[in-house]
Amino acid sequence: MITIEKARTWYKDADPVHDFEHVCRVYRMAERLAQAEGADLEIVRAAALLHDSRGSAPGGSGQERAEHHIASANFAAEVLAREGWPPERIQAVQHCIRAHRFRNNGKKPETLEAKVLFDADKLDVLGAIGAARTIAYAALDGQPAYAEPSESFIKTGQKEPGEAHSSYHEYLFKLCKIKDLMFTQSGKRVAEARHAYLVNFYEELQAEVRGEK
Amino acid sequence: MITIEKARTWYKDADPVHDFEHVCRVYRMAERLAQAEGADLEIVRAAALLHDSRGSAPGGSGQERAEHHIASANFAAEVLAREGWPPERIQAVQHCIRAHRFRNNGKKPETLEAKVLFDADKLDVLGAIGAARTIAYAALDGQPAYAEPSESFIKTGQKEPGEAHSSYHEYLFKLCKIKDLMFTQSGKRVAEARHAYLVNFYEELQAEVRGEK
Repeated sequence: MITIEKARTWYKDADPVHDFEHVCRVYRMAERLAQAEGADLEIVRAAALLHDSRGSAPGGSGQERAEHHIASANFAAEVLAREGWPPERIQAVQHCIRAHRFRNNGKKPETLEAKVLFDADKLDVLGAIGAARTIAYAALDGQPAYAEPSESFIKTGQKEPGEAHSSYHEYLFKLCKIKDLMFTQSGKRVAEARHAYLVNFYEELQAEVRGEK
Repeated sequence: MITIEKARTWYKDADPVHDFEHVCRVYRMAERLAQAEGADLEIVRAAALLHDSRGSAPGGSGQERAEHHIASANFAAEVLAREGWPPERIQAVQHCIRAHRFRNNGKKPETLEAKVLFDADKLDVLGAIGAARTIAYAALDGQPAYAEPSESFIKTGQKEPGEAHSSYHEYLFKLCKIKDLMFTQSGKRVAEARHAYLVNFYEELQAEVRGEK
């Protein structure tokens, strides 16, 4: 039996942003989407708890992080085989985990369960939690929550020489576009609401920083 | 002449949260409140640019930070004397700087200019920027943006044994009460709006973390 308490032990070295609380939020969201979409709950739950289980510890190399979906899928196979899962269900979980990094070196989600995990993971960078995680990552990299972006960055995503990076740059370049990546209808609905919240948050932040509010 | 460009050189070692951008926001807000309240703009501007000029660098001891208003007031006197300011106006700036830490080992703001600086500094922990700074500080301390508070913490501010700290705890214990500290009418108005924003932000964050949104 794969429990949340067992899963906690797999994440004891995780970084403070990409941490076990992230895994718990993705687990709850994946359950919710799986129920709405009629996906296989056991596959989705196991995939959610195992999706970042390897390679997201601080101090790991860029390559380790970039390939954490592969390492986590391998670890998932070990764990589930010990639990006596049949090979085809282990492979279904592995597909979910490998495909949660689609567009970042991962495979495209082909199954409903993989689409549910992908959507649940991406929803955690939208809304108030998305703003909070992006600001926390920026702070850990020594970057401010807000720096004024250049015209060039706004138009093309290319920064001008010497332009600071900030959580607002991440929002403009990446978070803004996440809602269009959703695969499931229930994921799209949550994404629309969280996207609207995030847009409002950064508008408010910009107005406050500029002294307009 | 005390310019923003000159002020920037005093903050090159500041930490990423309590940084020169914070000083610039306080400067803009202090100007706005000073104009609305009819305060002496030259005193307010100099005090805003100098208010955190010493003792807020990372690696400083707790005592250095706790007494940064004293060290900054001393530094202000040096800078302004070199600029040829008369002693009574230097003292007026020093009073603003010493009093911006009222309730944290500072003097109570007695002049309109000191009240303006106090309010402007405190407004920077409300609103979207307040949420962003609190989350960034928490991340730098290895704490999450949100952890569920105990009943004990909600009622008394005393944590249960082993209870995690988070930016939400800071909000409940401290940020929530900031709006009631304002001295000026214009500060109170901005504080009401930013307080409302902050309350909404943490309600949204809590609902998302709990899987309710």
